[in-house]
Order: sequence, then C-alpha cells, then structure tokens
Amino acid sequence: MEYNFSDKIQSVKPSAIKEILKASKKSEFISFVAANPAQEAFPIDEIERICQWVLTENPITALQYSVSEGTKHLNYAIKDYVTAREQNLIKDSDEILVVSGAQQGIDLSAKVLLNEGDYVLTEDPSYIGALNTFRLYNTKILGIPMQQDGVDLDIMENYLKTHKNIKIFYTVPNFQNPTGYTTSYEKRKAIYNLCQKYGIVIIEDNPYGELRFEGEHIPSIKSLDTDGLVIYVGSFSKIIAPGIRVGYVIANKNITQKIGVAKEFSDIHTNVLGQIICEKFLTTCNINLHIAKLQRLYKNKITAMENAIAKFDENNFLSYVKPQGGLFLWCKIPNHIDISEFCKECFNKSIAIVPGFAFQTDEKAECHHIRLNFSTPTNEEIQQGIEKMFKKIEL
Amino acid sequence: MEYNFSDKIQSVKPSAIKEILKASKKSEFISFVAANPAQEAFPIDEIERICQWVLTENPITALQYSVSEGTKHLNYAIKDYVTAREQNLIKDSDEILVVSGAQQGIDLSAKVLLNEGDYVLTEDPSYIGALNTFRLYNTKILGIPMQQDGVDLDIMENYLKTHKNIKIFYTVPNFQNPTGYTTSYEKRKAIYNLCQKYGIVIIEDNPYGELRFEGEHIPSIKSLDTDGLVIYVGSFSKIIAPGIRVGYVIANKNITQKIGVAKEFSDIHTNVLGQIICEKFLTTCNINLHIAKLQRLYKNKITAMENAIAKFDENNFLSYVKPQGGLFLWCKIPNHIDISEFCKECFNKSIAIVPGFAFQTDEKAECHHIRLNFSTPTNEEIQQGIEKMFKKIEL
Repeated sequence: MEYNFSDKIQSVKPSAIKEILKASKKSEFISFVAANPAQEAFPIDEIERICQWVLTENPITALQYSVSEGTKHLNYAIKDYVTAREQNLIKDSDEILVVSGAQQGIDLSAKVLLNEGDYVLTEDPSYIGALNTFRLYNTKILGIPMQQDGVDLDIMENYLKTHKNIKIFYTVPNFQNPTGYTTSYEKRKAIYNLCQKYGIVIIEDNPYGELRFEGEHIPSIKSLDTDGLVIYVGSFSKIIAPGIRVGYVIANKNITQKIGVAKEFSDIHTNVLGQIICEKFLTTCNINLHIAKLQRLYKNKITAMENAIAKFDENNFLSYVKPQGGLFLWCKIPNHIDISEFCKECFNKSIAIVPGFAFQTDEKAECHHIRLNFSTPTNEEIQQGIEKMFKKIEL
Repeated sequence: MEYNFSDKIQSVKPSAIKEILKASKKSEFISFVAANPAQEAFPIDEIERICQWVLTENPITALQYSVSEGTKHLNYAIKDYVTAREQNLIKDSDEILVVSGAQQGIDLSAKVLLNEGDYVLTEDPSYIGALNTFRLYNTKILGIPMQQDGVDLDIMENYLKTHKNIKIFYTVPNFQNPTGYTTSYEKRKAIYNLCQKYGIVIIEDNPYGELRFEGEHIPSIKSLDTDGLVIYVGSFSKIIAPGIRVGYVIANKNITQKIGVAKEFSDIHTNVLGQIICEKFLTTCNINLHIAKLQRLYKNKITAMENAIAKFDENNFLSYVKPQGGLFLWCKIPNHIDISEFCKECFNKSIAIVPGFAFQTDEKAECHHIRLNFSTPTNEEIQQGIEKMFKKIEL
C-alpha cells in the first residue's frame, strides 16, 4: 500500500541528534551528544524505597487508572516545591497540571493554542524537540537570534509588528539548550512587556533551572505574570530521573483546563508510579540537598571540560561563554572551518558532537558552533575526548 | 488575558464519563461507569518483585532516558507474546512500537495520517476517547451503525463510495466499548476487503481481546493484512495494569517509523519502569495463567450482574446481548423512557451509569441504551446497585 501520510508528519524528520546518538553507540565512542543526567545523579536508594513502600502499602493506587490532571498528592507537592523556590508562581492548585515529561507540556500547550498556519516565535538556535513539536502543528517558526543575555529584542519586536497570527513565544531562559545562555532579568521583563503588548502567550521551558552552579537565581518570567500569559513548564527529568517521564505545567486555570482535556485524549494520564516517586521524593526526601549535590556534580564536570580544553586546545580553536548552569558548552570554532567536516573528523576519531545547525530554525543558515554536553560522559571520558579532538587536527 | 484557543481544542469537551465519575466519587455511590480492571486483577507481587529487582540490579537503565520506539527487550517480549497468540501478526521487530498506553497509539496513528478536513469512519457508538482524539485533528467522523456482529457493511461501503478523503476506519472488533459486541470473522474479512479496495487504513484497537470468557477466539483483522493497511493497537492496561501506561502498535514499518518520529516530539519515550514491568511480566511470569485468572474473574462478575438483573428486573426493563468477553453490558431500556431522566434517577439513588448517547458520534441522535461496567464494582456492589436501580422506579 502507498501510504498517504499527513502533511505535518512529512514536515519533520527524526532529530539529527538521535541519528548521531545511534551511530555513536559503539563502546569505543566518547559522546558529547546526549543531554542525559550523569550516572551519579540518580537518587536510586530513595526511588527504590518509595517503590517498595507504595507497592506494599498502596499498590492499587499505583497501578489503577488515575486522573488526567495528575494526582492530587503530586499537585500539592509541586505547589509546595515550586513555591519554596519562587513565592508568587502559583495561586491555586488548578494552575498546575502534571504531564508525561516537559516535552508533553510543550506539545499540549501547542495543541490547545495553535491553528495551522500560525506563527511561533523562538530563540534561534533553540531546543530541537520544541521546534519539531511546533512544526507538527503545521505552523511557521520565526527564529530570533540568541544573544548572551537572551533574544535580540529589536528583531523580536519587529516580528511582532510585521506578522499577524503569532501565538506563542517559546523560551528556555535558564542555561538554554543549546547555548547555555541565560536571559537577563532586564530582558525577561522586556520580553514579558512585549508579549503583553501584542497578546502573545509565552511558553517558559525551565528544565535546567535548578542546575545553577554559579551566579544568582534570576526570577522566572512566570513570576512577572500579572495577566496570565505565561505557561511555565517544569521537569523532574534533570533533578530526579528522566526515565519516569514526569513534568508539570503552571498556567492560568483556563489554560490548564484545556491542556487537561488535550491530555485525556493523548495518553489519558501520566504513569502513576512515576508520579508517586516524584511526590514522595519531594515530600519525604531532602530535595534541596539532592539539588545541591547535582550542582556540585555538574560544576565539577564543566570544570573538567574547561580544564581539558585549556590543556589540549593549544591554538584557542574553541571559544565559549561559560554557562552558569545546565548541561551544555556552546563552542565557537573558527569561521573558516566547515562545521560538518569538523564533526565528521571528530566522528572518525570516535568522538561524537552535535553541529550547531541542528538547533537552528533554518538548518541551512551559516553556523560556526558545536554543542558539547558535559553531564553524560565521565570526567575521564571528558579529558580523553577533548584530547582526542585536538590530536592531529588537519586544518 | 483573553485566550485565543485553537479550533481543535474548542471542538471537544471533557468526556461525559469523566464528569459522572467525578460527581459519583462519594463513598455511598455504586458506580457502573468506569472501565477499570477489578481490584483483584493486578499481579501486585510480581510487579513489586520486578521493580525491586530492576532498581537493585539495573537502576540506571530504569531511570535514564531511553529510545522513542521502546526498549529492545520489551519489543522482543511483545513479539513473542503476540506471536504465541496469533502467529502471523508480526514479521519483523521494526513493526512494533511501544506507546504510552493504547490511547497514545490511536493519537499518534491519527497524527501521522490525518490532515484537517479528512474523514474518519468509526463504529457508532464507539470508544469516546478515540472519537475525541480524531476530533482534535479537526477531522470529521462518519459513524457506521454497530450491529451485533460488527458494523453495517452496506452503510460502510456507501460512505466509502460517496466521501473522498476518508483516511481511517477505526474499530474495536473484540467486546467493543461500549456495546460489548464482537465483529464476526466474516465481517472482519469483508471490512478488510472494503478498506483494501478503497485504500483506507484500519486502526484495529484491541484492549479487551485477551478478556474472552466465552466462545472461540476470532483471528484479528491484522492477521488478514497482506497489504500492510492495518495498525493494530494492543494494551497492557487490562492484563497487567493501566497505571503504568504501556501499550503497543503493530503496523508496517513505514508507519511505525513515522509514529516513532511523532512520539519523539510528543513525550520522547514511554516511561521505562512501566516498560520493564511489562517485559519482565511477559518473560518471567506466567502471563497465560494470569489471563486465565482474569477471564474467570470477569466471567464471575458478569454472571453476578446477570443474576442480579434476572432477580430484580422483574418487568424485563433491561434487555441485552450477552458479550463473550470484555468489561461492559450494553443494555437497552424501553423506547418510551427518556434516557437522561433514567440516568438522573439512578444518580439520585447513588447509582452511576453512563447514558449510551455519550458514545454516539452524534450525541443528540436517538438513544435507548445504557452502558453498565461490571469489572470495577465488587460482586456485592453489583448486586446492591442493580437492586437499588429497580427499587421504586417510577415509569
């Protein structure tokens, strides 16, 4: 049979990262590609204890159907956890919706807001998973160049002035994927004001916010949200475990109500065991101590990467702005180097890296960056991988 | 802010069932509304043992990011399990894709196949979750009246002749929700031939297939699929546990490849702990013995319901065709009775039931049925609920 696939699915392809990940699975490879938490990052004992407890004491609750919006217990635990970090984010429990990972939060936000042909504004480069999610609604993406302190506001406003049907601005304000850049407080306020002026919903995706290992916390855009135009997407993937697929959305209850309906007809509800792991971890374990441990862990890893670069990159081939948190180092390579050739050369030396254009809204636009992940490899692998990268480079 | 929600989300509302479920949560209620497995149906000890094993022996695998298509181990386990039940369903592992419950299998199949304005053919009445999923792609649904042995083939062919852009025929051939009817082997062949002739993809949703407590197994439509036009959707919700949200899709690999891409940008992957529970239950426990236990359990429950109806429905107010499996009894009430009034009257007596029109493609069309679920209440609740239902009915 000749399949007549939908226009939307034909507009996206599997992510380049996934392809590189698959190709670099052999054991001799050192990979700077994934965005996985470090092996040491998982609170294994606590999760084991929670699972054992619930499957002994309350198994039916963990195994039976549950409600689309997430369990009440996890809802309350999220409210307390988020409020302890930022006081004014949540007024009411109705503003919280549990989702099957932050990716679903983005997807369902798009589903309830976007008609075909609408425009979405994003940082450029941006998280590839969000870009493709928006493409799957047959929408058009307008990329705003990313600067060290957030998007270029002039270009953002120009888009808002010249394009009708812009519905969403998508941003990762903390330690952005792929650049590691953090949007300054001034720009957060300016972004909020612009979106307020033009009636645009902001999706504030914050998977890495807790992983700040330097500098001071910057209030979220959601904390400025007097008008209810921000959908804040939080995740337990980086602070508890990604395999359990639990995240959450915080938004005006009119929005969470719609997202709840969309969720019911997407996957009915989020897996309950994962929800209980998050709830009990938040309420019976020391989440702040655990996050402090993660911050030390990733600070240690980025330091290992910086040291390796300082040692082996004798000609200052790579340049970068050191991020204050997160999982990525966004490195510029000299303009005269072909980025695909460079990545290929690394691949031939069993080093896997992602070319920056994989994150661009237009993959064919000029690109002189690579993204290096420092959370997944061990410190030894970081050292060896960077050393190999600079051995016998023929430029 | 005035939200400008998408057309698609405005076309659906939360399911009526969900509203009735919420309203009937008080302890005095006896509910025939849910489609939950019975409390006794869960293999709790096995699940506890599996979780303990994996979180002790292989925790990182269970907690780290995984692949969109599902773990290789679960893929192989599904292949063996399905093949043991029907030999010719799966040729290659590429034809299997793990999803976050059957609901997601339906949703992602719709996503990769449907453009806005396309038509979907369904049984009428049908599973409300599928109907709303299709509506969320801005498609139009054509309902084919459901008969005791499957859809009316003349009406089906007439639709196929007169409507362009019919892309999908959606069917639950075994113990359908809500009717409990099973499509005969003759009709399965006729349906396949019709869809083959008109180039329509069949979504064969089989959540209840294993729960046959009477009669003989009927080969799936997928087993007839020489041309690769059937997407078979299987579920572990009714045979292991729905809270873990694991199901699977079996289809031509060109389709599963597209669904895999759509899945990556919906929820990245299915929760891994749930996948490991299913894999290990299939490979290290006696799934056939467990299914035989479930068949006895639900046979016992439908018998309790039949006995209660025989005892308390002295005037033969309800009439039904006894299903050979599944979870539902689809009862006709006399034509002169207003169905909403009847459901309301039951509700006032703390009995929750779903009016049949909730499952119709046109909720406003004439309706003389109610759906009674017999899996969720205990045998005592079944007896008491049916007794109450017929007490002091003022007709």
